[in-house]
Amino acid sequence: MSRERFAKFIRVLHQRQPDMTVLTDKVHKGQNISAIMRTAEAAGIGEVHMVKPDRGHIVYHNTAGGIGRFTTQRVHERIEDGFSHLRQRGFTLVAAHWSDRAIHYREFDYTQPFALVMGAEKKGLSDYAAHEADAHVTIPIMGLVESYNVSVAAGIILQEALHQRQQAGHYLRGCAEDERYRHTLFEWAQP
Amino acid sequence: MSRERFAKFIRVLHQRQPDMTVLTDKVHKGQNISAIMRTAEAAGIGEVHMVKPDRGHIVYHNTAGGIGRFTTQRVHERIEDGFSHLRQRGFTLVAAHWSDRAIHYREFDYTQPFALVMGAEKKGLSDYAAHEADAHVTIPIMGLVESYNVSVAAGIILQEALHQRQQAGHYLRGCAEDERYRHTLFEWAQP
Ligand SMILES: C[S@@+](CC[C@H](N)C(=O)[O-])C[C@H]1O[C@@H](n2cnc3c(N)ncnc32)[C@H](O)[C@@H]1O
Ligand SMILES: C[S@@+](CC[C@H](N)C(=O)[O-])C[C@H]1O[C@@H](n2cnc3c(N)ncnc32)[C@H](O)[C@@H]1O
Repeated sequence: MSRERFAKFIRVLHQRQPDMTVLTDKVHKGQNISAIMRTAEAAGIGEVHMVKPDRGHIVYHNTAGGIGRFTTQRVHERIEDGFSHLRQRGFTLVAAHWSDRAIHYREFDYTQPFALVMGAEKKGLSDYAAHEADAHVTIPIMGLVESYNVSVAAGIILQEALHQRQQAGHYLRGCAEDERYRHTLFEWAQP
Repeated sequence: MSRERFAKFIRVLHQRQPDMTVLTDKVHKGQNISAIMRTAEAAGIGEVHMVKPDRGHIVYHNTAGGIGRFTTQRVHERIEDGFSHLRQRGFTLVAAHWSDRAIHYREFDYTQPFALVMGAEKKGLSDYAAHEADAHVTIPIMGLVESYNVSVAAGIILQEALHQRQQAGHYLRGCAEDERYRHTLFEWAQP
């Protein structure tokens, strides 16, 4: 490992945003999962949450140079488990979803601790997630299609979150160099 | 066809943005092409331009309810052809690309006539496109990945374009009800 690479690991670790994550609600296509992981990693998310699709496993195509090493997946059996886990950790649950109570995605305050909930390719968000979410956000559409691809929608919203957090100086603040920090750095540095 | 659907066709046709398009530079994965078409349609783009990948055809998976009916593809043999075609039609060519002259993607003015040039999955933008583009725009990354998935990157930038055009009232202005308008409406209305 080069000195530059090690220095980059340290810089990126300091920019990690432990109070920001994604929860996928039965998203199942490997390419979508992979693109969401990649976008999440790019925004400084160290752990992504996923609810298992009804059939099969979550397959994650390693198309982008082993993101899985840098952003981990935590799989929940049911959406209820994902919600209670994240609520206990103090996250506001904001779902990407059209509804009467939805607001424009740029109007939400992403500098607060939040988990972005994304619905499945065909079925969209589960009723439970739609009902229990603290807020709904939508991305405008000026055409005939009814929705965006799920990984595109996640990318648009997470980029807005990155933007707001950058403006607010969150990537400068950095997280404390605790036990976990040293552990992660050690793991990344393995060949 | 229901009266509502016909009314929606008319509304969407009036919101079409003929002075905005995408040019893909050998993007080849079907899922990416499909997601880019879908995002383009959502932003009001009626025609997308694509440069053929080296091998094979442009395959376009029809995963989103026949977008191809509403946003058409024009395929160019070489990137040079795509550039000269679009230049002749008065488009500014803005490439999504990291470089010394790149600006933040939100700093570009998308209310002007523009074509967004996107690079291929592995190889990125061709040297020709990078050199000839009028401007380069980048999307910030705070993690270890080196780039976003191409359809995610296109989605992020086109959403900013939609946002700027919405603020500027471009979707209200609408295009003239000329021969082409009536022709398109007729085509869409076919069962
Ligand atoms: C392909 S869409 C699901 C479409 C599904 N037919 C439905 O009615 O919800 C997959 C997920 O992407 C997100 N999404 C797609 N387009 C969106 C938009 N315009 N606004 C907010 N979220 C969107 C939502 O989380 C959605 O559940
Ligand atoms: C997967 S990337 C190509 C990566 C390639 N290895 C390279 O070095 O360019 C595919 C395309 O998505 C767009 N893209 C991806 N991430 C981007 C970013 N952060 N800023 C601007 N464009 C990006 C560019 O058009 C790029 O050519």
